[in-house]
Amino acid sequence: MQNALLVVAHGSRREASNDEVRALTQRLAAQSNGQFDAIACAFLELADPLIPAGIDDLVAQGASRIIVLPYFLSAGRHVAEDIPEIVEACRAHHADVEIAIAPYLGADDAVIPVLLSLAASEVRR
Amino acid sequence: MQNALLVVAHGSRREASNDEVRALTQRLAAQSNGQFDAIACAFLELADPLIPAGIDDLVAQGASRIIVLPYFLSAGRHVAEDIPEIVEACRAHHADVEIAIAPYLGADDAVIPVLLSLAASEVRR
Repeated sequence: MQNALLVVAHGSRREASNDEVRALTQRLAAQSNGQFDAIACAFLELADPLIPAGIDDLVAQGASRIIVLPYFLSAGRHVAEDIPEIVEACRAHHADVEIAIAPYLGADDAVIPVLLSLAASEVRR
Repeated sequence: MQNALLVVAHGSRREASNDEVRALTQRLAAQSNGQFDAIACAFLELADPLIPAGIDDLVAQGASRIIVLPYFLSAGRHVAEDIPEIVEACRAHHADVEIAIAPYLGADDAVIPVLLSLAASEVRR
């Protein structure tokens, strides 16, 4: 197993919100067309697995390259500082594994047509 | 002026995050192809304008129908309770204006290809 994707969300005290992220990750894996050998999710805080455990698990599965994908809408402290710091600590534990951080979701203008589509669906009701 | 869109984000103590939402709203307006007569953003808390002020402003511009679009990734208390309660109070103040709430961003599977594209952009580096 080579390439792995770890979707990282904030985590919530509301377990239904964490389950939403887990379900999204499963649908993402189903639609990924083999782009990754493994796809999992992890949380910055408040829910399991936390990011280090998520990375450990992918490494245990044989991942040699892991993309960490922040499921966040804005570049706040979590995206700018917390996730990079945690990932850097994980790199120290897995020196033979390449761990990269992808742009966060809100950074991509591709969300714009999604938003317009959602708005249009409401207009048509 | 008839149809208006109000993008509603959480709001942050970090003004750069609020400015990200404002900039996204401008890009969204530029790409909306006249789907709405006015497009603005508002915040649930911590930033201006708050939702009632955002709705008041659109009504003052002549909006007779307003779509509130929650820029949120999960259906937590904010999406499920807070935004609907605030919108309901606004309806009472603007009985002649139709105010609808669109599905929140994270509810739409259209985010999945966006996520895969972001991950792929990192893989290609």
